[in-house]
Amino acid sequence: MSGNTFGTLFTVTTFGESHGPAIGCVIDGCPPGMHLSEADIQPELDRRRPGTSRHVTQRQEPDQVEILSGVYEGKTTGTPIALLIRNQDQRSKDYGNIVDTFRPGHADFTYWNKYGIRDPRGGGRSSARLTAPVVGAGAIAKKWLFEAYGTTFHGGMTQLGEIAIPFQSWTHTSENPFFAPTDDAELIAQLEGYMDALRRDGDSIGAKIEVVANQVPIGLGEPIYDKLDAEIAYAMMGINAVKGVEIGAGFASIAQRGSVHGDEITPDGFIGNNAGGILGGISTGQEVRVAMAIKPTSSIRVPRQSIDKDGNPVQVETFGRHDPCVGIRATPIAESMLALVLMDHALRHRAQCADVHVKTNRT
Amino acid sequence: MSGNTFGTLFTVTTFGESHGPAIGCVIDGCPPGMHLSEADIQPELDRRRPGTSRHVTQRQEPDQVEILSGVYEGKTTGTPIALLIRNQDQRSKDYGNIVDTFRPGHADFTYWNKYGIRDPRGGGRSSARLTAPVVGAGAIAKKWLFEAYGTTFHGGMTQLGEIAIPFQSWTHTSENPFFAPTDDAELIAQLEGYMDALRRDGDSIGAKIEVVANQVPIGLGEPIYDKLDAEIAYAMMGINAVKGVEIGAGFASIAQRGSVHGDEITPDGFIGNNAGGILGGISTGQEVRVAMAIKPTSSIRVPRQSIDKDGNPVQVETFGRHDPCVGIRATPIAESMLALVLMDHALRHRAQCADVHVKTNRT
Amino acid sequence: MSGNTFGTLFTVTTFGESHGPAIGCVIDGCPPGMHLSEADIQPELDRRRPGTSRHVTQRQEPDQVEILSGVYEGKTTGTPIALLIRNQDQRSKDYGNIVDTFRPGHADFTYWNKYGIRDPRGGGRSSARLTAPVVGAGAIAKKWLFEAYGTTFHGGMTQLGEIAIPFQSWTHTSENPFFAPTDDAELIAQLEGYMDALRRDGDSIGAKIEVVANQVPIGLGEPIYDKLDAEIAYAMMGINAVKGVEIGAGFASIAQRGSVHGDEITPDGFIGNNAGGILGGISTGQEVRVAMAIKPTSSIRVPRQSIDKDGNPVQVETFGRHDPCVGIRATPIAESMLALVLMDHALRHRAQCADVHVKTNRT
Amino acid sequence: MSGNTFGTLFTVTTFGESHGPAIGCVIDGCPPGMHLSEADIQPELDRRRPGTSRHVTQRQEPDQVEILSGVYEGKTTGTPIALLIRNQDQRSKDYGNIVDTFRPGHADFTYWNKYGIRDPRGGGRSSARLTAPVVGAGAIAKKWLFEAYGTTFHGGMTQLGEIAIPFQSWTHTSENPFFAPTDDAELIAQLEGYMDALRRDGDSIGAKIEVVANQVPIGLGEPIYDKLDAEIAYAMMGINAVKGVEIGAGFASIAQRGSVHGDEITPDGFIGNNAGGILGGISTGQEVRVAMAIKPTSSIRVPRQSIDKDGNPVQVETFGRHDPCVGIRATPIAESMLALVLMDHALRHRAQCADVHVKTNRT
Repeated sequence: MSGNTFGTLFTVTTFGESHGPAIGCVIDGCPPGMHLSEADIQPELDRRRPGTSRHVTQRQEPDQVEILSGVYEGKTTGTPIALLIRNQDQRSKDYGNIVDTFRPGHADFTYWNKYGIRDPRGGGRSSARLTAPVVGAGAIAKKWLFEAYGTTFHGGMTQLGEIAIPFQSWTHTSENPFFAPTDDAELIAQLEGYMDALRRDGDSIGAKIEVVANQVPIGLGEPIYDKLDAEIAYAMMGINAVKGVEIGAGFASIAQRGSVHGDEITPDGFIGNNAGGILGGISTGQEVRVAMAIKPTSSIRVPRQSIDKDGNPVQVETFGRHDPCVGIRATPIAESMLALVLMDHALRHRAQCADVHVKTNRT
Repeated sequence: MSGNTFGTLFTVTTFGESHGPAIGCVIDGCPPGMHLSEADIQPELDRRRPGTSRHVTQRQEPDQVEILSGVYEGKTTGTPIALLIRNQDQRSKDYGNIVDTFRPGHADFTYWNKYGIRDPRGGGRSSARLTAPVVGAGAIAKKWLFEAYGTTFHGGMTQLGEIAIPFQSWTHTSENPFFAPTDDAELIAQLEGYMDALRRDGDSIGAKIEVVANQVPIGLGEPIYDKLDAEIAYAMMGINAVKGVEIGAGFASIAQRGSVHGDEITPDGFIGNNAGGILGGISTGQEVRVAMAIKPTSSIRVPRQSIDKDGNPVQVETFGRHDPCVGIRATPIAESMLALVLMDHALRHRAQCADVHVKTNRT
Repeated sequence: MSGNTFGTLFTVTTFGESHGPAIGCVIDGCPPGMHLSEADIQPELDRRRPGTSRHVTQRQEPDQVEILSGVYEGKTTGTPIALLIRNQDQRSKDYGNIVDTFRPGHADFTYWNKYGIRDPRGGGRSSARLTAPVVGAGAIAKKWLFEAYGTTFHGGMTQLGEIAIPFQSWTHTSENPFFAPTDDAELIAQLEGYMDALRRDGDSIGAKIEVVANQVPIGLGEPIYDKLDAEIAYAMMGINAVKGVEIGAGFASIAQRGSVHGDEITPDGFIGNNAGGILGGISTGQEVRVAMAIKPTSSIRVPRQSIDKDGNPVQVETFGRHDPCVGIRATPIAESMLALVLMDHALRHRAQCADVHVKTNRT
Repeated sequence: MSGNTFGTLFTVTTFGESHGPAIGCVIDGCPPGMHLSEADIQPELDRRRPGTSRHVTQRQEPDQVEILSGVYEGKTTGTPIALLIRNQDQRSKDYGNIVDTFRPGHADFTYWNKYGIRDPRGGGRSSARLTAPVVGAGAIAKKWLFEAYGTTFHGGMTQLGEIAIPFQSWTHTSENPFFAPTDDAELIAQLEGYMDALRRDGDSIGAKIEVVANQVPIGLGEPIYDKLDAEIAYAMMGINAVKGVEIGAGFASIAQRGSVHGDEITPDGFIGNNAGGILGGISTGQEVRVAMAIKPTSSIRVPRQSIDKDGNPVQVETFGRHDPCVGIRATPIAESMLALVLMDHALRHRAQCADVHVKTNRT
């Protein structure tokens, strides 16, 4: 395949460009009989939508989703579910000046070299706007997993630039514009000031995002290549701007001894979760824990050196509407990707091990 | 698929268990006409082989590879190449005491729950021994990439537990038992002492491994799911014991400003490589840089709490022959996985963009 | 996958139901740089469109196609091409009486048993209406193959019920309502009378369709499972109502001796084409020849025995608008499927054998 | 993929050449917990084995299978099952004279043009010998389907050249050297005389093979591309020498009226089986019926015109050990392919529709 389909049994094939007529996806493999309407999907899209605070891009996109197929009388039929989102606020003229130049940190250079042609309007296919259909598909996966196993998803920002955001509770992530899992008003104010200063500088910053899934059935993941952690790493690293992925203890494992890292087991369950809910590539039934590093937005006002298509040196300053920290809106996307991976593997597990009882294991 | 095939166009399907009669793989999609014999593969297997120093498992396995198909008169024919490695030093009795218990940090618990049955001899399918066929396949990919593009691979250990190993040169990795890219004799002695102490304690430790590829063609990687970095993350996270993956600046990107992170471009090439050789999921032609966190070996002598199949509490102490730091032998494996990913994408690129000139870009 | 994606490197993922809001597809893997607009696609859709003669269904569907993505400034960009066709003439009420019964010869019984739910409006997903997006995708494949290799496609009806239609020339297929490759006015009149009688009877009839491709490059097809003939058989048998597929001499091969069947080769090319342009699963460069048997339409006015969902006996008479011979409109569909298979294999061939010169071989 | 893997969830990846060191396959996706040993596989291989009567090739191959992995203490573990068959009777010298020429009707011409290199010993990869691993994999699928659903397979030859073989009972297929479903001694004698005459002439002949599966669960098959009949057509057309495939009424459907073809349904089941057990691409629970046309063997003693690699005219006479009718040994192969398709779809059905009760429907 040419890389626009995600998943093996529960597949999502996306299409569209940032400033084309529409974006969307075709979701194949959703089991029949689940209640589904646009009302199940729209709230997740709204969480990711631009323009919701001054800290993110001001592009106005209602991101109104239409279900084109796969649902009859309010229930899934087992046939493909197509989601369509028309682009509204395209303003292609904003991008006129960058048609022939390669913006540093962007996909311009590589698309041009790979394809010999690229749609420069808003980054075309490489725009983070293409995560919207994924979030739509993720809403369906989340609903199915919750109904089948009670699985729930949470996520948020745990670091903004140098500022660590100590975890308090996932419930707080909807109470501030950063998906920060804290109700520390002072810290939130600090983050806001940090972002305001950054915007004044015309610069951008990275972030750390963490997502978890609870009530994950034991046994998801296929050795030895489609391990659950490998698939999660693939899913997360494929999100725009992600440069690193950790499962459980992640890079902290390097300095851990085996006698510390290996989670002991008692009749009441595991003690600790350095594994992040995955052993040997298969879910343990514990919380699945994932963290990722998001690089700073490449579209900044600060002038930067680059070249044009003919190899001539140019200076690039990006105006227009950009998220100064793409990490802010990354939480619903990362949750969605995690849901897509888990749902795909839940179906794969049913195929091969339907006779083995599916259990969940509380930590 | 059930997860034992790696790749899309250049595929590797592995089989075997740690203490079964044999392990091996079928490599499909290797272009015809390349000279190939066991002599091209054996040296890579020897780099990964157990028993090469006192710091790794003392299991004696010659890991002698036999090519069963796909080669005629010394050249690949375009048909599947099967590699066979007979297991020699099986000593199943070493593992008798763990048949009914779940070793902490191991796949025992999850395999049992997933399949309702497991081969406990040496970890069965979940053993790191199954990376041997991958290294065999990787040798073929490395050879092809070198002949087609001049691509070369290097890798080594850059941290052992708390001890950082400052990079000097990849040439040193073959001069010490750790694949450490340094000729600092004092540091090597420190690492040896550290490992000796650990063995005395019956404990284990994590490590950081880095691998790079040079002379990678521009344009490899498929948006938007089979991005090159996503596929690398999948490949690396799928290696036994890996808990984190970074591309380029990785987690350091979090605290970088966009004006620092985004690699500027001049008519002579990129300035810097925070991207790790990949932008928008597509190779830039720069060095591809990957780092990974390896957890400490789970098989340790230190007694640990666990349960048996019936849920009764047990105490587990693992004797037998184990690597106290699985990171030590991880370098050739990680290089091989990187080679498999690049070769697969080189073929995919030819399929869709054969008319676009393939370039390499020196940094 | 759940079966709604066709192809390996050039993939078509379709969605939609006969009477849902829209049907369409996402085409992934089209190489960049080809001129493409709706004007390239619409004529092929018009060939398949209902309501073009009194011998086919009178459903009024303009089948107006919209390209949603993958094209920039009139050229393909290498990213997915989404095609959208809104359904217009849905008239769901026509189908009200069959909601709870299983029409003989239809997918009603099997969909109900497979999914436990089905969209009964016009056959839902199992309707032949879903071949429209395939024809759209086929138009793109035909264009690319013609530009790359000069490949052309032809097809027509060579038997209607008991009436054989001797082949004269493919040019005649556009001159009569049956895609019959003949200008024998008497024969055409006979076919028309046959169809008129059938409609009066409220019955239906089968047909034989043949399609060919010329200027096919030598070397397409992957042994030993994705053989070109195997893939063509898969493609053709997947078209609604097809019950048999032949390549080259087909079933006539049974009574042939080897000294007759095996096409001899001279320095000027092959003598004969019993092989149908494929040997060992790989194209020879000769004309690729395929024939298929189309069963009679299952929707007929003649009353038939069946059961309802509760297993009670019912009598089914299907009114509404149906093709009394689905074979009539099958020609453009079969041509499209053949084009999709050849394009997919052309790309696969480039991946693995790019260095081997692609030749065409005139017969 | 490069075409050497069959299936989606239950996959078979084969390797090997006719006269290489070994042939075999890796079977991935077999559910855990099934009893399995070589004794389950060998009898099926013996049915296909050469040298069992004077009417087939006299090559002596014991085709002794070894299970290399995936089985522990006599049960499948859910991990890949590798089968290995060493080649014994290679006699490469028999083929020396054809190294540089293209035998009419063979894959020589196409392999050479596709790959620029080919293993000419016994046809290399294109040899029908490569169906042995498939039969091994088929034995596993048959066993699993029988244990899960009671599914059984039968098949035989129903036409040899011009001689029709009227069906009496599948039980007779093991009582004569042709897999003929008849105990008509006169007819068998006629077939033997026919074959003897053919051998004297140094010529070959085609055949028709039919295979059926009974107690197939309702609901197998994925619309709209991976339809069960489409997958069967793909499987059968991929067998060496097959030139046509029919499901149910097949080509006879062309001259059937809808009022005859569409199988009526009563509370006791279907009346008739023109559908061949498949409607809308999904199994009905009736007997699945498949027929195929096998072309005459291309390797014959009768001299034939051809060319060598340089395009010079040559005359080809094939000596050595060949089946004068490859159809004779095709029955176990076709049964195996059918079993592989059904097992793959049984697993796929469990993935997506596990909650829907699986039923079987007696006809």
